[in-house]
Amino acid sequence: MSAPVRTTRLITQRRRPRGMPVPEDFAGTELPLVAPAEGQAVVENLWLSVDPYMREAMDAEWELGAPLEGRSIGRVVESRSVGLPVGALVFHREGWRTHAVVSEAEVRVLPRYEGVATESFLGLLGGTGLTAYVALTRIARLRAGEAVYVSAAAGGVGTAAGRLARLLGAGRIVGSAGSPAKVRLLTEELGYDAAFDHRAGLSLSGQLARAAPDGIDVYIDNVGGDHLEAAIGAMREDGRIAWCGAIAQYNAGCAPAAPRNLFDLVEKSIRLEGFLVSRHRDAQAELEEFLVPHLRSGRITDRLSVTEGFERTVDAFLGMLRGENTGKAVVRLGPADPEPVSDDTP
Amino acid sequence: MSAPVRTTRLITQRRRPRGMPVPEDFAGTELPLVAPAEGQAVVENLWLSVDPYMREAMDAEWELGAPLEGRSIGRVVESRSVGLPVGALVFHREGWRTHAVVSEAEVRVLPRYEGVATESFLGLLGGTGLTAYVALTRIARLRAGEAVYVSAAAGGVGTAAGRLARLLGAGRIVGSAGSPAKVRLLTEELGYDAAFDHRAGLSLSGQLARAAPDGIDVYIDNVGGDHLEAAIGAMREDGRIAWCGAIAQYNAGCAPAAPRNLFDLVEKSIRLEGFLVSRHRDAQAELEEFLVPHLRSGRITDRLSVTEGFERTVDAFLGMLRGENTGKAVVRLGPADPEPVSDDTP
Repeated sequence: MSAPVRTTRLITQRRRPRGMPVPEDFAGTELPLVAPAEGQAVVENLWLSVDPYMREAMDAEWELGAPLEGRSIGRVVESRSVGLPVGALVFHREGWRTHAVVSEAEVRVLPRYEGVATESFLGLLGGTGLTAYVALTRIARLRAGEAVYVSAAAGGVGTAAGRLARLLGAGRIVGSAGSPAKVRLLTEELGYDAAFDHRAGLSLSGQLARAAPDGIDVYIDNVGGDHLEAAIGAMREDGRIAWCGAIAQYNAGCAPAAPRNLFDLVEKSIRLEGFLVSRHRDAQAELEEFLVPHLRSGRITDRLSVTEGFERTVDAFLGMLRGENTGKAVVRLGPADPEPVSDDTP
Repeated sequence: MSAPVRTTRLITQRRRPRGMPVPEDFAGTELPLVAPAEGQAVVENLWLSVDPYMREAMDAEWELGAPLEGRSIGRVVESRSVGLPVGALVFHREGWRTHAVVSEAEVRVLPRYEGVATESFLGLLGGTGLTAYVALTRIARLRAGEAVYVSAAAGGVGTAAGRLARLLGAGRIVGSAGSPAKVRLLTEELGYDAAFDHRAGLSLSGQLARAAPDGIDVYIDNVGGDHLEAAIGAMREDGRIAWCGAIAQYNAGCAPAAPRNLFDLVEKSIRLEGFLVSRHRDAQAELEEFLVPHLRSGRITDRLSVTEGFERTVDAFLGMLRGENTGKAVVRLGPADPEPVSDDTP
């Protein structure tokens, strides 16, 4: 039996970032771990998530110096809960740390789906995949054959949205991304029918019109601003826009310019709907039911952008904000991270 | 039997308005009326509608010098159609003219609902009432007890929206209008719980916050621009905005400023949906079924802003654009308009 874990490494926020965060905004520290109470367990983290919404939380929501909230997957290494047996894989929200003490009610013991990697619960089966799924099904209510445009298409939500749209029966699927390499990836590996580089210095509207010459029915918006304006312009009657977020804005300190053609929403009977995935957790079971068979069959594979090692968590987060990831950005806690020392004595 | 009508007075558009139209943009004329063919009838108009959407059509859609499209109610005075007997009241779209030759397929023979005035088919039972009804039921999907805000609340759609919202079980209903007299009317006669003057020089957001201190769930937008921004600011989570139009924009030559807080649509899970009532004509039967009993019982009365006389049609239109009407603006074709001369010889 392992010796009880009595400390955890964790990352805290030292100060509020000004615009794009820098490593000095964060601090790594080691803290004592309280012994689990009845109904609790100690979890050793295997995977951490870094997400755009975290940048926003850093402005005001998160307390300086306190542990940061975040989606994580860990293994139970010590337990005082019958529902959290040692060895169980659990999803929790204790964030950027190597170990955590969790209560049964706060975590989800992850099912083991044959042929599905655990880390998919931070990817296609996690908040990112759920965001894309809710955007397409509940918000945009995609119908078979409809044309879909996805901005930030190489990002976490974007890579999920393109492939889910295909599985859901979409017609033409087009995406935009911020580099030629990403654009190639979208069409060559991620199932997009057409893609363009929004940093190429060309008109967004013109590029979108060429990529989707018959217009679009659904827009999955991860950007806002001029992308939203171009999408409204390209939209057919009865189009729907699912607005998931606006990553660029989180560091800008101000809202992206609102689209000048907003009144086209009336002229073309368009619906623009914002949402937070946190309010659609009840769609998780439906997502798994829909997606697990496709993951198992290999018709879709999760594409994670993996950074190795807990000590590189902040790097992974900053890289994601700079758009360096393709696919959902996660951190794998590797051999460099503290492991409980094996010990035969209790 | 009346002598056959062989001419009609009508109003045509002489030139494209620059901004707010002036009387010189229009011309009154008298034209021969073709004899009705088999399946057609001659209608003598009793009521004409003047609507904001017409201003938009004048910029490009309508042909100069041609008869103008518009909702009208007339009486059949000569018929070669069994479906259009002499004396029948019909709704048609032949617009600003005293007489028209219509085909059965193009018109609706109006039902006679006891206790309901014919002209209500240009008011609460017409396109204006249908716009408000569709906005509340299909677009915003108002639920019982929810707080509703209506801009341009003393206008055609606005007066309908406030009262329909009440009949549909809304909670607090607040409206904005452009003069102290209209504001009084909203609370004293039109069933609004609170109202404010958006031209009072005070902050729109502040006035809305005072009128609806607990926020709003539904916004019926007839204005766009800063009203939309204030409404987004006041909106509660899961709010819905039904965007019917933006009367101010039609004369401005450019779109109203887009709301700077548009991203709140994501943060608060708000739906902003534009629509054209022309795409919801199938809701007409439902509207009548819902509303006629209330009209009959007097629980709601149609409030039309009536201009007397065909020759004042352009005045009525321009006055409506300037916001001089309270309630739906219509024209009644009175005794000054040409009547077919009674004649006993065929």
